[in-house]
Amino acid sequence: MKKAVVLVSGGIDSSTCCAIAAHEEYTIYAMSFMYGQRHSVELESARRIANAFNAADHRIVNIDLRAFGGSSLTSEMEVPKDRTTDDENEIPSTYVPARNTIFLSFATGWAEIIDCCDIFIGVNAVDYSGYPDCRGEYIAAFETMANLATKNGIEGKKLTIHTPLISLSKADIIKLGIKLGVDYSITHSCYDPDNDGNACGRCDSCIIRRKGFEAAGVPDPTRYTN
Amino acid sequence: MKKAVVLVSGGIDSSTCCAIAAHEEYTIYAMSFMYGQRHSVELESARRIANAFNAADHRIVNIDLRAFGGSSLTSEMEVPKDRTTDDENEIPSTYVPARNTIFLSFATGWAEIIDCCDIFIGVNAVDYSGYPDCRGEYIAAFETMANLATKNGIEGKKLTIHTPLISLSKADIIKLGIKLGVDYSITHSCYDPDNDGNACGRCDSCIIRRKGFEAAGVPDPTRYTN
Repeated sequence: MKKAVVLVSGGIDSSTCCAIAAHEEYTIYAMSFMYGQRHSVELESARRIANAFNAADHRIVNIDLRAFGGSSLTSEMEVPKDRTTDDENEIPSTYVPARNTIFLSFATGWAEIIDCCDIFIGVNAVDYSGYPDCRGEYIAAFETMANLATKNGIEGKKLTIHTPLISLSKADIIKLGIKLGVDYSITHSCYDPDNDGNACGRCDSCIIRRKGFEAAGVPDPTRYTN
Repeated sequence: MKKAVVLVSGGIDSSTCCAIAAHEEYTIYAMSFMYGQRHSVELESARRIANAFNAADHRIVNIDLRAFGGSSLTSEMEVPKDRTTDDENEIPSTYVPARNTIFLSFATGWAEIIDCCDIFIGVNAVDYSGYPDCRGEYIAAFETMANLATKNGIEGKKLTIHTPLISLSKADIIKLGIKLGVDYSITHSCYDPDNDGNACGRCDSCIIRRKGFEAAGVPDPTRYTN
């Protein structure tokens, strides 16, 4: 069987992405990151998703994004609540500079070591239009760079970065995931959960999640405090 | 003054690179990595070099490259000794998959946060011809990707990755560094130092260092055990 490194955060998108890779008959090598995020409860969701799709391995990499701050996800800055999406081009404070580049770089290293030519990442250009590193042109440039960065490139193998969700709406992602057997009750989206892991219901991520389930016509299994 | 993020490992190349950035009147923001390398004594050299060039800040980022192994620098594999350079295209076991990509990704994130458009990295395509991520075409591809990955790109600023040493011989690097005031006695190169930080004299890095000082006609200040 073909191997795939799948970046699994434990949210809706990466969980669905994992289901797609499994459906395409890849053996899953799940990779998650402990990066000082205030919502590290998501890693428990990542673990459950990796198990649900029979991952051959699941590595949780410790990285120190707090070392340079700059985002409300990794610092003392407030997570914004009840934001409207009036300004499509505004980059929210939850944006973590170079996060996807750092995550994909680790995935590239691991892929090289386990002799794997396929990486799956659940980026989405629809809901995260304000994040520069969720766009197709960025992913294409990363793929080009990664093929020059590694032995794979020199040995004539081609590393492919798969982004099966990039143009899907959240509702379509949820509908697809349900078809592929994702149990969304074990996923986590909230940027600012309470100590019991309950979702705040008001951060961008909760708002997008709620609307997604509503638009998909699927009951939302999340416990919200608001 | 212009800011530059300079990747400083504490070796000859990155120290000289730091001197070049200082000479070009950049304010230095030094960045180093604790990545499970067996030669972490190099970080003390990095600290001294950052001080010597009046760095405005020096961040040592903890990252977990041991999480996926695959290199003799980060695992129990033996560091190769007394290697000859017969096979130019051979990738040695000291190669750490995706290391420069991971380092540059962190530098890209920090640069974005401190509003800096210049990153310096002391890669060298002459001595490290076997490392895919030391080639000019790789660096160019990284730069393209990084400009798409970040706010900088969107806001019309251009991030530049400077590689002033890429085509220099080790002897030329040392001669340039001495002209620019680098104190090489505080630098460290050995991949496999003893507990007191003395260089083994036999790993690739020691061999290249020794030959470099010899070719430059400059006394080598290193304490070698062999």
